Amino acid sequence: MADGNLTLKWEEGCLVLIDQRKLPLTESYVRCCDEKSVARAIRDMVVRGAPAIGVCAAYGLALAAKNYQGRSKDEFLSVIRKAASLLSQARPTAVNLFWALDRMEVLVDQNIQAPVAKIQALLEAEAKKMEAEDVHINRQIGKNGAEALAACPKEKLQLLTHCNAGALATAGYGTALGVVRSLHAQHRVKKVFVDETRPYLQGARLTAWELYKEGIPAWVITDNMAAHFMSLGKIDAVVVGADRIAKNGDTANKIGTLGLSVLARNWEIPFFVAAPLSTLDGALCHGKDIPIEQRDPREVREVMGKTIIPDSIQVKNPSFDVTGHADITGIITEAGVAYPPYEKTIDKLKGS
Amino acid sequence: MADGNLTLKWEEGCLVLIDQRKLPLTESYVRCCDEKSVARAIRDMVVRGAPAIGVCAAYGLALAAKNYQGRSKDEFLSVIRKAASLLSQARPTAVNLFWALDRMEVLVDQNIQAPVAKIQALLEAEAKKMEAEDVHINRQIGKNGAEALAACPKEKLQLLTHCNAGALATAGYGTALGVVRSLHAQHRVKKVFVDETRPYLQGARLTAWELYKEGIPAWVITDNMAAHFMSLGKIDAVVVGADRIAKNGDTANKIGTLGLSVLARNWEIPFFVAAPLSTLDGALCHGKDIPIEQRDPREVREVMGKTIIPDSIQVKNPSFDVTGHADITGIITEAGVAYPPYEKTIDKLKGS
Repeated sequence: MADGNLTLKWEEGCLVLIDQRKLPLTESYVRCCDEKSVARAIRDMVVRGAPAIGVCAAYGLALAAKNYQGRSKDEFLSVIRKAASLLSQARPTAVNLFWALDRMEVLVDQNIQAPVAKIQALLEAEAKKMEAEDVHINRQIGKNGAEALAACPKEKLQLLTHCNAGALATAGYGTALGVVRSLHAQHRVKKVFVDETRPYLQGARLTAWELYKEGIPAWVITDNMAAHFMSLGKIDAVVVGADRIAKNGDTANKIGTLGLSVLARNWEIPFFVAAPLSTLDGALCHGKDIPIEQRDPREVREVMGKTIIPDSIQVKNPSFDVTGHADITGIITEAGVAYPPYEKTIDKLKGS
Repeated sequence: MADGNLTLKWEEGCLVLIDQRKLPLTESYVRCCDEKSVARAIRDMVVRGAPAIGVCAAYGLALAAKNYQGRSKDEFLSVIRKAASLLSQARPTAVNLFWALDRMEVLVDQNIQAPVAKIQALLEAEAKKMEAEDVHINRQIGKNGAEALAACPKEKLQLLTHCNAGALATAGYGTALGVVRSLHAQHRVKKVFVDETRPYLQGARLTAWELYKEGIPAWVITDNMAAHFMSLGKIDAVVVGADRIAKNGDTANKIGTLGLSVLARNWEIPFFVAAPLSTLDGALCHGKDIPIEQRDPREVREVMGKTIIPDSIQVKNPSFDVTGHADITGIITEAGVAYPPYEKTIDKLKGS
């Protein structure tokens, strides 16, 4: 699992995804053999997590290309463009989705003179490359994060994480959980507090399951318990993932991350964001410009199919919030750890 | 409902409780005709909420007295003592439970020379009196809270509340929701954000239901969304209940309250605690001395009977946290609103 053969697999020319909606109680798989089924899997959260979404979108585009049977270059390019447009609309917040599609389209542009079959092969190879790169990047993030957390005076750390920024959110190993895995390999993890992460329970269902499978001690808590354990001195550092990072360091991540960052500052607990450089959106100066996805209210009304709130009651379901750069101790990337002022340090990492 | 005929009813010599575990999907009732069934109902959260628990405990003691068939004063007093001991162990955090039992036992002491039948009648009358008093107290809290919130510059307020400090948490009308009801009667409520309040979902199930029945506009949000809406300027004030308040103003309330108080301070949002004077524990100087109930992990593992976390994964379930007095704008009681420094102002209200 740590090496990424769990979240997604390229198998006999199709993308096979573990159905994350059903974990941890059921391990079942969804087979996507065209761009439409990939887009649907992303939208319906069969697969989620910014880096994983990026790699899946790349495979989705490769599938659209591969399924084209004709020989007309124009028609082929139109198929690619339509597929990219469809895939880009599957989720709005994670920038890795757009980053991955851009990269695939740039590859097409660069090989625009090549025959269709050649471009088809290049796109499939590029998606596979992005998958492999993502695992490598996460291992680097893990290594860099473990070094950054070496500054914590305690030998064994109690960490808090939110949502799932693990192997399941990536092509493998994980970003925030990559840091946890790397620290665990160094025998430096005492315990991981896992926010259950309502409404979709990615923490309770996915992160806890990943940590259990790796033998890393974990306690699942409800989202509203974090402050209590912080106040008791039980949490040494917070490590979360990211869906999009603006140039100033403002970070969109799963709803609840903003609150944790404010609580962490209150108790002077280091708060780290772990994400690949592809999560950085160079086009955005401030977090307030990041679009926030409003998801189906049923995710709040129901818990794994069980209705808890009748239709007569109104509910809200913003899926992300934006953590202010001032409350982020450091941003852990594959190229190193950026510290404030992020405008300068992020650019430096990108250039390195 | 606002007048308290919903949460609990004294009917043909028994205490009838609405089963809050099953709301809002089912309205069913539990009939308690002895102290054991009352203690069980409190422990199992058929009834919850500090003021409601207090009144129920009083009825529980009245039932124990009433059910004694003999004529021996010593035997009778022993029955009373045993019942008080049993009832006091049903929940550990809400001080109103101990306050109510103390008040009943003091009444017994004052009438120790009276015949058994007379004491039995006195205890039943006292429990009924406490029920009526609680509703009256809550109306006063509502009135005082609405006055305190008049300081908010906006004409119509968007309030946030956590857990259920409503009619269902009291003998009627509610403490925090008493303030909301009172403001609503003055046409000053634009909307109430209701934290769902995991693990037990008192907000999603009980508060939202109460507000819906009263026609007060409400949005249920997951606990981790509060910071997001605060950051957007959507929340003008936070009003919560309390289970125990120390002399310095430190307040134990439902898990998640502490985090909200820190978030409210961050965005400079007034944070009010609404509670009867009986919630004040004169024996405790600091919140850190308040015992925190650790409840059954199954409450976290399961959502209304649906398992979300398998037994292989560890979970924690502290039911309360302690909000520091420095983050509380004011404590709204039936005698008026206490502002810092609470050591002085609370004593003054108690004396008034």
